Amino acid sequence: MKTKIKTTFALVVASLSLPVLAQTSDPLPSWNDGQVKQQIIRFVNQVTDSSSPNYVAPADRIATFDNDGTLWSEKPMYFQILFALDQIKAQAKQHPEWSKKEPYSLVLSGQLDKLALDDVLTMVKETHTGMSSDEFTETVKVWIATAKHPVTGLPYTDMVFQPMLELLDYLDENQFKNFIVSGGGNAFMRAWASDVYGIPSERIVGTRLSTEFVNEDGKYQVKRTAGIEVVDDKAEKPQQIYQHIGKRPIASFGNSDGDLQMLQWTTSGDGARLALYVHHTDAQREWKYDRESEVGRLDKGLDEAKQKGWLVVDMAKDWNQVYPAK
Amino acid sequence: MKTKIKTTFALVVASLSLPVLAQTSDPLPSWNDGQVKQQIIRFVNQVTDSSSPNYVAPADRIATFDNDGTLWSEKPMYFQILFALDQIKAQAKQHPEWSKKEPYSLVLSGQLDKLALDDVLTMVKETHTGMSSDEFTETVKVWIATAKHPVTGLPYTDMVFQPMLELLDYLDENQFKNFIVSGGGNAFMRAWASDVYGIPSERIVGTRLSTEFVNEDGKYQVKRTAGIEVVDDKAEKPQQIYQHIGKRPIASFGNSDGDLQMLQWTTSGDGARLALYVHHTDAQREWKYDRESEVGRLDKGLDEAKQKGWLVVDMAKDWNQVYPAK
Repeated sequence: MKTKIKTTFALVVASLSLPVLAQTSDPLPSWNDGQVKQQIIRFVNQVTDSSSPNYVAPADRIATFDNDGTLWSEKPMYFQILFALDQIKAQAKQHPEWSKKEPYSLVLSGQLDKLALDDVLTMVKETHTGMSSDEFTETVKVWIATAKHPVTGLPYTDMVFQPMLELLDYLDENQFKNFIVSGGGNAFMRAWASDVYGIPSERIVGTRLSTEFVNEDGKYQVKRTAGIEVVDDKAEKPQQIYQHIGKRPIASFGNSDGDLQMLQWTTSGDGARLALYVHHTDAQREWKYDRESEVGRLDKGLDEAKQKGWLVVDMAKDWNQVYPAK
Repeated sequence: MKTKIKTTFALVVASLSLPVLAQTSDPLPSWNDGQVKQQIIRFVNQVTDSSSPNYVAPADRIATFDNDGTLWSEKPMYFQILFALDQIKAQAKQHPEWSKKEPYSLVLSGQLDKLALDDVLTMVKETHTGMSSDEFTETVKVWIATAKHPVTGLPYTDMVFQPMLELLDYLDENQFKNFIVSGGGNAFMRAWASDVYGIPSERIVGTRLSTEFVNEDGKYQVKRTAGIEVVDDKAEKPQQIYQHIGKRPIASFGNSDGDLQMLQWTTSGDGARLALYVHHTDAQREWKYDRESEVGRLDKGLDEAKQKGWLVVDMAKDWNQVYPAK
């Protein structure tokens, strides 16, 4: 009986939503018409319609977005690692010994393919810790304003996905609260993501490095230290959402197996739920990768999405624009 | 020179603010006129006046409030502990062995004075963990809607401080973002504090117990487990503010030595800053305690507040009402 009412309701909404769409401007112009776009709009219509059995009060319209590969690109490697390598190069003058000391020498001579994962971690710690919270934020702000991507030559903030910016706006206009829940560092993201995505600082959840509280000449500072408190990936994502937000999202957006548990938790709640994977299928305009990729691997998630009927964006087919127009 | 401009400006603001106040309704009617009230209003006027050298953009108007003893009472012991003890009593029927087993038997026979700190921790873990996130929230909601305080006989949510509710509203109307930063449990607070204080769930920062992500019959849950991840007190407060919000507050409100580091960090930033201690001086209408109290001790903080010119609310003198009128 319940199912029947829901089905009937969905049909009513589907038939009602067409004239509404025809009358108002398209909220998602960079999304081609098709199943994915229609289902996003149908979901939003349902949860915002106070006469719908799937209505959700604004305070509970929680939407969580992965960042790397979901809101911006992540190739040839996570942009935060490119930041770390750029900082190593910028600091090389103060460290003449680095030219002969691995792994620094590999970075300085451009032999990035020889870097092991541990080397990368060493350089992330070197460039992300040992300073005050304010100093680190300032360093990231300067980098993001000036650095260029090694392949496209674009500023990194020009490599965000235009369709996802539209989706963030669309949800925001429908009184959703958008959150970023990323494996990226919380402080790294906060230095630029609020401006670029319109998401307030406290709605950005990420990996946490450790800190200490210090008194420096009578001024109190939070200082960044080299420990790792939480790696906000895989099963940590739903747990960090619970710790940080205290609510189960009704909509989640990811692109890799690292987002799978977030989507599982989201879709295990009652009522209407939206789970969406961005599938990188566009070698021309962006990158094409999934099951075999070291960065942003989408393998188990792709299988589960198909099995459970989650939305999968075929980037080449579903998006008529990838990066924002100049 | 800079000081002179600031002083002149402050005088201008002070003289301007009087007619403004006279014309508009009092935003803090439960606060008696005096230094504390005047300085709160002067601070808010400064940081919201776009022509002021102390102007702060809305996104950076971060205000952090302790909860226990700052927004509501905390005697004879933290209300969250009273919740735990009430749960032990409620669950006693399912545990007949408790009537002869300490520390449970002490709770069941009302001998609370014989409880040691470790006993209390045992019972907090017993009543706060081992269930799903949703189940715990539901349990707290039922308790807060029905339980009565052992001394006043009032519902706990009637023991919030009316002047602080007005202050939260006043800041909110002036586009501040209010946060709770408490030693209390984040999930315990979120079950009721959003409704009572008008603070969204994600702006409530507290002590974190550990969790795990589990699949129960195909439904994914975040389950509460018995570890302690962070005790959000003392030097952890500024660090958790940094991890959670990513910004240094411009205004902080506390009542105990556990809030001292939060106030130190807040007042170490540039520009206008507001630090305020609620001093429990009112044995008639609430409780009177400070340097010697086990719960909510205010000792070092009181000295530092005097030395640095932070605001100290004399509850008996500065507040014409403590709890909301019926």
